[in-house]
Amino acid sequence: MPVSKELEQTNRTTMSRHSERGSYDRDVAYAILDEGMIAHVGFDAGNGVTVIPMTYARVDDSIVLHGAVASRWLGSFEGGQPVSVCVTLLDGLVLAQSAFSHSMNYRSVVLFGEASVVTDKDDKQRAFKAFLDHLVPGRWDDSRQPDARETEATVVLSVPIGEASVKIRSGPPKDAAKDLELGYWTGVIPLELTAGEPIADPAMNGDPAVPDYASGYKRGRGHN
Amino acid sequence: MPVSKELEQTNRTTMSRHSERGSYDRDVAYAILDEGMIAHVGFDAGNGVTVIPMTYARVDDSIVLHGAVASRWLGSFEGGQPVSVCVTLLDGLVLAQSAFSHSMNYRSVVLFGEASVVTDKDDKQRAFKAFLDHLVPGRWDDSRQPDARETEATVVLSVPIGEASVKIRSGPPKDAAKDLELGYWTGVIPLELTAGEPIADPAMNGDPAVPDYASGYKRGRGHN
Repeated sequence: MPVSKELEQTNRTTMSRHSERGSYDRDVAYAILDEGMIAHVGFDAGNGVTVIPMTYARVDDSIVLHGAVASRWLGSFEGGQPVSVCVTLLDGLVLAQSAFSHSMNYRSVVLFGEASVVTDKDDKQRAFKAFLDHLVPGRWDDSRQPDARETEATVVLSVPIGEASVKIRSGPPKDAAKDLELGYWTGVIPLELTAGEPIADPAMNGDPAVPDYASGYKRGRGHN
Repeated sequence: MPVSKELEQTNRTTMSRHSERGSYDRDVAYAILDEGMIAHVGFDAGNGVTVIPMTYARVDDSIVLHGAVASRWLGSFEGGQPVSVCVTLLDGLVLAQSAFSHSMNYRSVVLFGEASVVTDKDDKQRAFKAFLDHLVPGRWDDSRQPDARETEATVVLSVPIGEASVKIRSGPPKDAAKDLELGYWTGVIPLELTAGEPIADPAMNGDPAVPDYASGYKRGRGHN
């Protein structure tokens, strides 16, 4: 079934504040999800709300997550587990005249859904490829693919991207007119996640060339 | 009451996987919290688990958060609300011989506690200063401080840092001995949040100098 271009607007995904920053455009959400590297996943497995950082990838219209079969909390996910998944990209610090008007430039997606365990072998393999190629495009082909034991030792979870919303703030500060006379410097300090020189593994055999995807690693769109 | 040097190890903060990456050292947790800029906060205000990104600061042995009084979900926090707060710093991508052994270098704190509303005016003012100086040290003195209306329009929440744990991964990949013969390049792509040239606010009056804390903005410890 083709998904709708718009995300699902519910009581939970409707913004009560700064609705001008909100969007329900699926393509906008996907661009954020594809640039992010860590998802913060919240769930209540009977012990109160827990938020943990996880790697993830987008596969079509779902988010896939993974963990070890031996992981304590994953045991609760067997029958489907309601989760909230949040991916946030920090783009800058917004310095205003008033302390109150200081802000951040950011892009975030908040998603609600049920995480279900992926059991189909092909789907699982596809998720494994997505985890790697999401972080380092091209790396899947430059690595040994999971064997049966590794595949069985890993739980892959899938959460459909449906009930979700996007929030974006960009641009300069918005001070009240009277505050502009105060005369402080105001503006944006742009922030970006950047890569340094790759550090070779001391355990590596031989001297293979550093692949382009490592030496030229780039994420995002550069300082705006 | 002086807090213990160790964080509180409970069922929720005990690691079931990779316990070698875990720590309950309060100072280690504080260093991560002081470097981070966004906390992912999870709670259930009666509508299922929700995770949202928030700015925060550490004030002594507590995390302070803030939101608008008009915010829908903050209404539920009046009587104290159980939350889970997670701060994650991404330090690198770890490329191994096997897809399975790929990993990330990161430092994270996961905290459980009850968020209570800060009502004392002095404590609130202290939190406002902490929000700004946490993000841009020195900025509080270069801005107009909150007036009565702004103070009243803002809800400040405080969560004690007690039941919490730290997880850190660093260093090269750990491949199985037999995989080292595969001959792929392996190592770490270091990642860091870096600042670009400050972008002046077009609405600014006059031409004040760019402050040093903006032109020389640095976060963290550099590419490792």
